Parts: sequence; C-alpha cells; structure tokens
Amino acid sequence: MRSILLHILIAISCTSAFAQQKITGFTAEHAAKQLETEKKFDQLLSAEDQDKWMQFLTSKPHHAGSAQGKANAEYMVSLFRQWGYETELAEYHVLFPTPKSRNLELLGKQPYKAKLDEPVLKEDRTSGQRDQQLPTYNAYSADGDVTAELVFVNRGIPADYEELEKMGVSVRGKIVIAKYGGSWRGIKPKVAAEHGAIGCIIYSDPKDDGYAAGDVYPDGPFRPAQGVQRGSVMDMPVYPGDPGTPGYGSVKGAKRLERSEITTIMKIPVLPISYEDALPLLKALKGPVVPDSWKGGLPITYHVGPSIEKVRLQLQFNWDIVPLYNVIAKMKGTEFPDQWVIRGNHHDGWNNGAADPISGMVAEMDEARAIGVLASQGIKPRRTIVFCAWDGEEPALLGSTEWVEDHAAELQQKTVAYLNSDGNSRGYLGIGGSHALEGFFNEVAGAVTDPQTGVSILERRYARGMATAERNARAKMMGNRYMKIGALGAGSDYSPFFQHLGIPSANIGFGGEGDGGEYHSIYDSYDHFTRFKDPGFRYGVALAQTAGRSMLRLANADVLPFDYNILTGTVQEYFNDVKGMLDQMRLDAEMENKLIRDGVYKLAADPRKKMAMPVEQASVPFLEFSQLENALSKVSKTTILLKSRIRDAEKLSADELTKFNTILFQAEQKLLSEKGLPRRPWYRHQIYAPGFYTGYGVKTLPGVREGIEEHNWKESQERISVLAEVLMAFDATILQALSLLK
Amino acid sequence: MRSILLHILIAISCTSAFAQQKITGFTAEHAAKQLETEKKFDQLLSAEDQDKWMQFLTSKPHHAGSAQGKANAEYMVSLFRQWGYETELAEYHVLFPTPKSRNLELLGKQPYKAKLDEPVLKEDRTSGQRDQQLPTYNAYSADGDVTAELVFVNRGIPADYEELEKMGVSVRGKIVIAKYGGSWRGIKPKVAAEHGAIGCIIYSDPKDDGYAAGDVYPDGPFRPAQGVQRGSVMDMPVYPGDPGTPGYGSVKGAKRLERSEITTIMKIPVLPISYEDALPLLKALKGPVVPDSWKGGLPITYHVGPSIEKVRLQLQFNWDIVPLYNVIAKMKGTEFPDQWVIRGNHHDGWNNGAADPISGMVAEMDEARAIGVLASQGIKPRRTIVFCAWDGEEPALLGSTEWVEDHAAELQQKTVAYLNSDGNSRGYLGIGGSHALEGFFNEVAGAVTDPQTGVSILERRYARGMATAERNARAKMMGNRYMKIGALGAGSDYSPFFQHLGIPSANIGFGGEGDGGEYHSIYDSYDHFTRFKDPGFRYGVALAQTAGRSMLRLANADVLPFDYNILTGTVQEYFNDVKGMLDQMRLDAEMENKLIRDGVYKLAADPRKKMAMPVEQASVPFLEFSQLENALSKVSKTTILLKSRIRDAEKLSADELTKFNTILFQAEQKLLSEKGLPRRPWYRHQIYAPGFYTGYGVKTLPGVREGIEEHNWKESQERISVLAEVLMAFDATILQALSLLK
Repeated sequence: MRSILLHILIAISCTSAFAQQKITGFTAEHAAKQLETEKKFDQLLSAEDQDKWMQFLTSKPHHAGSAQGKANAEYMVSLFRQWGYETELAEYHVLFPTPKSRNLELLGKQPYKAKLDEPVLKEDRTSGQRDQQLPTYNAYSADGDVTAELVFVNRGIPADYEELEKMGVSVRGKIVIAKYGGSWRGIKPKVAAEHGAIGCIIYSDPKDDGYAAGDVYPDGPFRPAQGVQRGSVMDMPVYPGDPGTPGYGSVKGAKRLERSEITTIMKIPVLPISYEDALPLLKALKGPVVPDSWKGGLPITYHVGPSIEKVRLQLQFNWDIVPLYNVIAKMKGTEFPDQWVIRGNHHDGWNNGAADPISGMVAEMDEARAIGVLASQGIKPRRTIVFCAWDGEEPALLGSTEWVEDHAAELQQKTVAYLNSDGNSRGYLGIGGSHALEGFFNEVAGAVTDPQTGVSILERRYARGMATAERNARAKMMGNRYMKIGALGAGSDYSPFFQHLGIPSANIGFGGEGDGGEYHSIYDSYDHFTRFKDPGFRYGVALAQTAGRSMLRLANADVLPFDYNILTGTVQEYFNDVKGMLDQMRLDAEMENKLIRDGVYKLAADPRKKMAMPVEQASVPFLEFSQLENALSKVSKTTILLKSRIRDAEKLSADELTKFNTILFQAEQKLLSEKGLPRRPWYRHQIYAPGFYTGYGVKTLPGVREGIEEHNWKESQERISVLAEVLMAFDATILQALSLLK
Repeated sequence: MRSILLHILIAISCTSAFAQQKITGFTAEHAAKQLETEKKFDQLLSAEDQDKWMQFLTSKPHHAGSAQGKANAEYMVSLFRQWGYETELAEYHVLFPTPKSRNLELLGKQPYKAKLDEPVLKEDRTSGQRDQQLPTYNAYSADGDVTAELVFVNRGIPADYEELEKMGVSVRGKIVIAKYGGSWRGIKPKVAAEHGAIGCIIYSDPKDDGYAAGDVYPDGPFRPAQGVQRGSVMDMPVYPGDPGTPGYGSVKGAKRLERSEITTIMKIPVLPISYEDALPLLKALKGPVVPDSWKGGLPITYHVGPSIEKVRLQLQFNWDIVPLYNVIAKMKGTEFPDQWVIRGNHHDGWNNGAADPISGMVAEMDEARAIGVLASQGIKPRRTIVFCAWDGEEPALLGSTEWVEDHAAELQQKTVAYLNSDGNSRGYLGIGGSHALEGFFNEVAGAVTDPQTGVSILERRYARGMATAERNARAKMMGNRYMKIGALGAGSDYSPFFQHLGIPSANIGFGGEGDGGEYHSIYDSYDHFTRFKDPGFRYGVALAQTAGRSMLRLANADVLPFDYNILTGTVQEYFNDVKGMLDQMRLDAEMENKLIRDGVYKLAADPRKKMAMPVEQASVPFLEFSQLENALSKVSKTTILLKSRIRDAEKLSADELTKFNTILFQAEQKLLSEKGLPRRPWYRHQIYAPGFYTGYGVKTLPGVREGIEEHNWKESQERISVLAEVLMAFDATILQALSLLK
C-alpha cells in the first residue's frame, strides 16, 4: 500500500509542475512557446494608448451615418494598416431612421409639454455638442400622431398584462407608459401593440439607474433627472440587421424591401423619456394603485391608470438609407490560413459612446497592435486572425449582420470562433458563449491577473461569488473555482455569427464596479468613463489580455480546444430544466384550478378592491421526450469518447490535423436547423436564441421552451423532434472526427 | 370485514353529527345550551352602537391625563353599570411627560427649521382641535439640547450598526436619524445611545406608510407629508408601567423612585418627525451611499453621513404625575365566582385615537352589553367575567400594569385567562397568545362568520393563506385549516398578565384590509376610521363575536379547555429552532472565518469603496442541552397522558372539578422563574418575552435564545437549566391534575 500511495503523490506533484506549462490543445513544446508569446503580448499592451484612442473616438457623436462615425472608421483603418493588417473598409447601405419631429404633451387642465432634452453640463466637455447629437428617440419607432388616455404597464412584458387584466385595466386604444428594464426595450412596444395600445412611452425610473441607485451625474455616475436612454426598438428577436435586406448583405444596389413590407419596424410610435418628463404623466394616472413590485422611485403613489386627461404623442422620422463602415483587418495565418479566428466590437455609439462601445473597441485595438508588433518580430499566428470594428450595432446589429450575411458561406467554412466585446468597466470577468469553449475560457481566465488585486481574474470572480452568495450556495461553491459561462441571448454583434451561422462565439467583458446611469445618453462620455468606469484603463488592459490571449491560443493551438462534452452536458441541464418546467406547470395548473374550484381566491379577495378572479386553465399535457432523451444519451457517450481520445490528435499528420480541426470548429453548425425557429427563420441555432418576449434574455432550447411557455403543445412536440435531429447530426460529425483518430 | 367497515362508517357519521354540537370542555348538554347562548349573544351585538360609542369616545383627544380621557372613563363606567356590572374607576398616579418645548434645526448655509406640526384638514373634522392635541413627540425621551453632525442609521437596530462599522462610520458624539419600523421605536434611541449617539430623530419614511404605500390622507388612508408617529420610547423591554413604581401599584401616596433613579427613561433626547421635515436633513448627509436594503421612498440618494452641517435638537418636557382611570367592571359567576375570565382593551389614545384603541374598545363594550342583557334574561356566566378599559397604555402600558401589580396575588389566584384587543379593522383574524389555548381558538374561529364572505373566519384565514402563499408552502398547507397562533411579544396590555404573572393570555384582532398611515397621528380619527378601516363596523361586530364567544366559553366550560400538549409541542419547536440556530451560528462562524483566512472578502471588495474587512470571530461552542431535552420529553409524555384522560374530569364532583380547573388555569404560572430574565426581573415567563433588542418582536425561550444571540454562552447555559427547572415544576403540576382523575 505504501508504495502505491507514494506513486500517487509523485504523479500528483508531477502533474502539478507540468500543469503550469500545460495549455489544452498544445503540445508541450508549443505550450512553452505560447506562454512566452503571451508574456511578450502582455508587455506590449498600453493603457495610455487605449486612453488616447478613446479620446479621439469619443471626441464627437459617432452614430451610424455620422461624419465622426466615418472618421473613426478611417482612423482605425489607418492604424490597423500601420500595424501590419490587410485592412478593408466594408461599406453597406442600410435603413436608419432619425427624428424629424418629436412632441409629447399631457393635455387637459394641468398641461405639460415634455422637454425631451438632455441638458449641457459644464462638468462634461462633450455634452454641449448640440448640432451633432442625435436627439432622444427610439430607432424604428413608427411615425404617428396619437392622442389617448395613458396606462402604466410596469416593465411592459407579458406577465404585466396578466396583472393588468386581473385589475380590470385594458390598454386597447390607449397610450402605455413603461419603465425601462426587465426586458429588452423593443419588447415593450411590441407587447403593447399586441394588446391594442396605440402608442408607447418608455422612461428611466430613478429606482433603476437614477438617484435611488446612487448619486446622479455629475456628482456621481447615475442618471440625472433629464437623462434619457436612447435605443432601438426594431423587432430584432425576429431578425436583426438592415430590415430591408433580411438574410443577405445590403451592399450598394442590393434589392430592398419596401418599408411597408418590413415586419420588424414597430407598429406604433414609441418614445423614450427622462424621469423628470415622466413625473407629470405618472401623476395624471388614476385607477388602482400598482402592485408592490411595480413601484418605482418617484415621490408619488404609482397608479395603473387610465388617466382622465389625454396624452398626445407625435413622432415623425427621416427614413434615410445611410452608409455604414465596418473595419475588417486580417493577418494571414502562417500554417492554417483558411482557419479564421475573428474578434469584434462595434464602433458606433449613441452620441459620444465612451463606455458603450469605445471602451471595448480600444481594448481590441490594443490586442491588434500587440499582435502586429509580435508579427513584425516574427512571432506570427498559425491561423488567420481577423479584427473587426462594426458600424451600426446600436440601431440593429447592422454592420455585423450585413457583413456576416454577405460572407456567410466563407465564414461557415473558415471561422474557428468569434470573440465579441461591447464595452468594459472595472470589476469581475463575465463571459457568455458556446459551452464547448467553457473549459478553454477557464484556462485563459486562470492565466490573466486582476489589476486591482494581483490574483487571477478567475480567482477574483470566485472570491466575489463567495463573498456575495447566500449561505447554502456558499457551502456548495466552497473551493470550486470553475467558471460556468452564461448562455448568449442577444444584445451585441455575436448574434449573426452565433445564432444565424452556428459559429462558436463568446462575449467577454469586465463589470460590476463601474455602475452608472449614462447608458445611451449624451453623458456616456470620456469624462464620465474616466471618472467612474475604468479610471486608468486598467481593466481595458485586462480585457485585452483576456481576449487577446484567447485569440492567440485559438490561432496557435495544435488541436482546437473545443470540449463538446461540456456542451452536451450543458444541453442535458437545459433539457432537465425544460422538462422540470413542464412538470411544474402541470402541478401549478392543477393546484391553481383546485384553488379556483374551492373558491379560495374569491374568499381571500378584498371585496373593496375590484380584482378579476382567475379562471380555470386547460390542463398541461405530458409530452413525448424519448427521441430527444435517446439523442442526448447518444451524443453524451460520443463526446465522452472523443474527449478520452483527443490526445491522439497530436499524432495526426498536418493534413489530417487540418481536417480534424475543421470538423471540430464546424461541428456546432450541425446544431442549426435550416428552417430556423418557428416564425423567425433567421435564428437557426437550436440551443440558444434571444427570447421572443425577452429580447436580450436568452432562451435555451428555444423551440421547445418557448412552445411550452406559450402553451403551444403541438409546436413543442415538433421542436423536440427537430432538436433530437440536430443532435443526431451533430453526433454524426463527432463520430467523423473520431474516425480520423483510428 | 364488511360489518367492521360498517361499524366504522356509523361511528364516523355519529361523531360528525355530534361534532356540530360539541365544544371542548362542555358536556353534551352544556354544549347545546352554550350554543343557544352564543346565538342569542350574536343577535344582541350592534354595529350602530359601536359607531355611536366611537363617536363619543373619539370626539376629542383622549390621552392619559386629559379631560376627555377622564370623561371617557366616566362614560364607560356609567354604561357598564347600566348593563349590570359592579363597576369601579381604578385610579393610579403615574409619571407621564409631555412636551414643554421642541426645536429641531439644520444649521449651516442652507438652514432648515423643522415644522413639527400636523396640518388641519378640512376633510377630517377633529384634526383642528389644536388646544387639546398632544404635539408630536416621543414620551420618556430625555430633556436635552444637543448639536452635532447627523448620521443615518436605517432602522437603528443592532444589525444596522454592524453595517455602519463596515462602512467605517461612527455615531459617537453624533445625532442619529432612523426610519420608523423594523423594531419597536424605543429600541432605536436605546441602541443609538449604547453606541455613543447624543440625540435621536425618528421619521416615517414614505416607503413604509406614506405615498409609496398608497394614496395619502385625505385622498387615501396613508401618511401625508407632515404626518408624524408619536409614541413611547421608555425602555419597556426592561419593565413597563409607571417607571417610578416598578413591580407595585402606583396608588396615591405610593413610594416613588426619584427620576434620577429610574433606568427606563431614555438617556438621550428623541424626537419623531414627518418625512417632509426629514427630507432636508437627509439631503444634508454626506459619506457613503446606503446599502440597498436601507433605501427609503424619498426622491434622493440616501447617504449614511455624517453631515457636514450640524443639527440642533432641543427638547424640554413637563415631568408631571398624572391621574389614570381604569374602568373595571365585574359580573360575578354563578357557580365559580373565584374563577375570573378577564377581557381588556385600552381607552387612551394619542389624540383622537379611533382605530387605536377605540375600535377594539367599542367591540369589548358591545360584548359587555350583550352579556349584560343575557344576564338580565337569566343567562348568567358560571364564572366571573371582568371587563377592563385601561388608561395610559400608549405611554407605557401604565393603567394595566399598575392595576395588575396592585392586585397580583389575587389575579394569580383567580384568573382563568386574559383576553386583550387593541384596535381592529377589516380583514383576517389574527391571534397570538398562550399555546395552551390554540385548540380552543381554532374552535371559536370555526364558529364565527366572516361578515364579507359568509364563511367562517377560520376558513377565510385559510383562503387568504393559500391565495398568497408561495408554491411550496401552498402544497404543504393544502386542506389544513388549523390555525397556528402567534407568540406574544409586547405592544399591548397583555404583558403584565402574561409575562409578569403567567396568566394564560391572548391578543385578538382583525386586520389586513384596513391599511393606513394614520397610526399615532392626529389623523387616527373617526373620519379616517369609518372611511378606510372598518366602514359599518362589521369587523367590530366580528371581533365582539370572537372575543365574546371566547369569554362565554371560558366562563361556562365544565372542564377548562387548556390543551397543554399543544403548549409543550410548541415549546419543543422553539427548542429545535434555538438549537438549530446555535448549530447554524457555529457553521456560519466557521465558514466566515475560513473565507476571511482565504482572503475572499479582501479580493472581492471594490478598492474604490472604503469598507472595513470582517475579522475572525471566536468559534461557537456546543452547549449542554440534555437536562432540557429530558425535561421536554417528560413533560410531553405527561401532557399527552392528561389529554388522553381529560374526559374523566367530567365525572369529578363540583369541589374536585373546581380544584382540577384551578390547577389547569394556574399551570402556566409554573413556567415563570421567580428571578425573571437576566437584567429584567419583571419579565418572568420563561417561554415568551419581548426581545431586549426588538421590543414588539417576541423572543421565545428568551433567556436561552438571547444568550445565544448575544454570544453569552455562560448565561445561555444557566438559562437552559432554569428552563428545564420550570418545565419540571410545570410537569409536577400537570401530574397533580392527573392524580385528581384517579
């Protein structure tokens, strides 16, 4: 026994010494070289340059179609060229509406005309660039002139309309006012219109990012009384990109849909306003007091409405086609030039957009410059590296989507992975993406040092989790530093790569210590960013270290570090969750119906408050899951087998390895269904999609899950089959990779 | 088999038919008679009379020592006499301070002088009785003139000071401002003074009972901008009653402590203010932004402080001895005149006090009148019934405590139970009290009809619970209509009976549909009450039905309906809870210390926010519980035995039954410890006490629990023995009752 124990101890200590030099996918020799490269890479990064670039890029408003937007693109083209990249300015022509006229008034005895204006602050040097600023508005709102009573709909999501129904309040023919938050903003007017509303106002409640969250700008980082969140309300859960060219690139001269043919432009006029402008409107509301969870931070009793006095909302837009300028910078790989590792961040902002998006853009530029310097020293990537700076992300992921649609076949053929960022601030690492890369990102995060504490960013993330977790979660997490990455919904330029093409993707950024209320306002400026978000750009450098290291490892790995067993394990978890949800819905419906039959709600209700009583629901059926369960079981076994044999790939010939790696990086494309998701064919990934009624929020196994959530049992059952089929196709691909290892 | 099944079915149906007529503790014959009596009793109750009495009793401010207070007592004396009661006006002389001068100012560049005034409202007819109103103040505040910087301490409870310490903010030498709520108000200045504060301001945050809760008075029931909650801040968790005569009645000429000898008068000046007055003070605060859970509903960023500008608080009081007038009305029992069933509600208010306390007082009067009418028809109670109307409850339970201390021996000898109420409104039944009466109250609640729905108040309470419960709780509660009653802490006149003398007690009232922000303000008026609290006095009648039925059953039962097995089962639950808490504290301390040693908090902290790091705590020991566990086991067996044999008591002779019942109703007194609780000998009950640091909030098994909470292990261990000893004494008493059944 003793000698065996000794053996184990030696084995452990050897593994441990070796582990420091080990990188998954690299031979020992290549790993040592890679670590050397990464060390040099880190030393080339420069907070000072990030600062300087941000000063230029945020010097004026730089939204899609603006002069500064074009100047920024050209500035970056010139830099990328200097750094040794083949650089291209990829131009597209897209529909991008801007306001012609905006008016919002409360009529009646105590009339109020909304200011719709963000004041200039002497503490913010770019806030006074009036002539170049985009006014406060929601892009892709309908034109309109509507007058009606007002109803408050909380966050404006479907659950809120269920509450309204209980309170006996209808929005039909009314204008609704909703708080920002709780969903992507475009969901609010969409759901309002579905319920018959004729106009929609969205305001930033001070409880969310104004004075109740903390001191307001310029005293602190939060939203001042007249601050407004701009943003798109195009129905992107159907498809993003130029609404006139769904599925193909909007190059000059491309065939375009008529505006009347477009389904994703909002059906009703929508306008975002400040809490100063919202206050008189909310005060005019009568009717029931809102439920507790609806209450905001204004010094009033929140009522649901309707108001007695009417509100008039008048909006007219310029429906212009504007040019977009994507920057595409390539550095050809020395060994596998047709295997591309792509990195992107958008460069357009709502006005001066410093945190969003330039803080992420300058980190990416820092990565590109450092990789350029390394290449000039002869340390060149084995695979092709592509750096992108997207235009028109804010309106509708326009630049990235059009470029991806324009190059779909080549991208599916060649892209190893797409790494996105979209702004950055002090704090903790956050990653969402393809779960096949989860293990990879854990290794990367273990190798990057947190600038504030000197431990790894993985360690700091663990410390944060432990310090803030509840008692039970804490006991479970103790000692487990493994980072479970999130699933991607929507909200940035990974969508076309990931959900449309099935290219393994991730979104990376730091946050949690750079809170503020500047989002999509004129106050998202250099002055605000450098005071509150990431003074000294220390996390800008940390982001460059994390994303750049990820790029270099993906570019240089011998065997690509995809772990499909982690992916299939995650899919199994999602399946368990969906199945559990269905069972719980069934139990809930039974319980609810029993309580209704027993008269419990009637007896419990306050007779002085008029509340509609719930009615009995149809029972929730059992669905047939066995096809999917069998597929999951099969694919789990196959991916375990691949995992156990992956080291054998190092022995493959160069050609065989190229083929093997190509199968690996293309495998996730098998999880696409050609027909896409129900009623939104553009979204083809069967594991991840933005929710049809959440927008940003991901729905995993979206076909099955949303079918169940919407009680569409027939469709759910169909989507179970589709999911099983794509899993079997995926399984066949993994078997093909395995066959190369024989 | 078939015949056996038949037998069972017959047995069940007989039990069921019988059950309708069965009342625990009554022979079948007496039960039938009792139900007849209760039916008549119900018919004698009158919402109109309750309304009329309330109009008189709330016509002017009627606080302790006021002219209207005395007039009210005399009015009730005259009514009780008319109704056939031996009625007495029991007079005591107590220390009751009222304001001589009040001033609160924010000094500095933007000075503010607090208004300290509740405006007259034309919609509230009694709000303009300026010359008779008590100004806004906290009774038993210290005199003082203090000037210092201000610090916000959230609710002002010990946990808040732990947070302040983390934020590096001290209150030493400062004036604190605390929100009402989260504890009894007297805890706030007490804990502030313990931490070195020199003054204390308490304000009503609009989130709690102002505009954020609902529409404010007179539009709705909630607290208007200048509304103020008056109230006592005497250190009643040490002892209530006249602070100059602890433990004995303050009859005319009684020896009194000098004011300087009294320990329960607050050490620092304390003043309650409105949220309108609080706003400029809170705006003056600098320092860190408060934790999320501290935020209130004012339109500001809440900061902890300290302020730069100073605040001056000047308070002078008239330290007068005033006369109190308790009304004591007795109706002698026909068979057991020395067994008393006592009912009480206070009659003094802060100003016009309609909801608090008159709504409960008029229900009690209705009960008394109905019982008087029944007696005049020859339906007289078998035991003596005593109706009390207490004076001076608001300042410090003065009237009840002095009367109870004055008659302690007789009350312990004779009192079967004490039933208290203290205001009432629309809604659901709430009961707290001796758990030996839990089964009894379930039976009573099953026999009273809810005026709004027509089902029993027990059924409506169940429906309310089911309708509002979370999913898991709901599944557990399904079909279980049994009402678990609460444990009594402090806050009304049951304290001297229950916690000082060990007399079985309960507090009864309806609520949950009569929310408002009128509490202890001039707006707690007849106008407010009849609009928002209980229009038509329907729940006033329901309270009279519930409490009156309870009185009649206790007065007429053959065998008193105490179920001591429920009590001991409840004590066992409390013990499990305390033991679990100790184990959890140990695990928490170990986890916390490990995280501190691992540097987790340091790594997780935002370096730009100055937060003190937690330090390692002493480990939590194991305590020796076996003596207590053995006692609990013993008493559980004994009480089960009594329960199984209780029907035998019906066979006892009249003398034996008197003796048996006397043992039963005196048994809870065995749960007193003569020396009382540590540092507060007046509180002698070892199962229930108000928390030393919660005030209203009960601490069950208080000696043991508070010792553990305060890490006073030696004291906890001693209290475990004391608790075991009183349980064994209680066990001996139950055995004595059992011996009578042989």
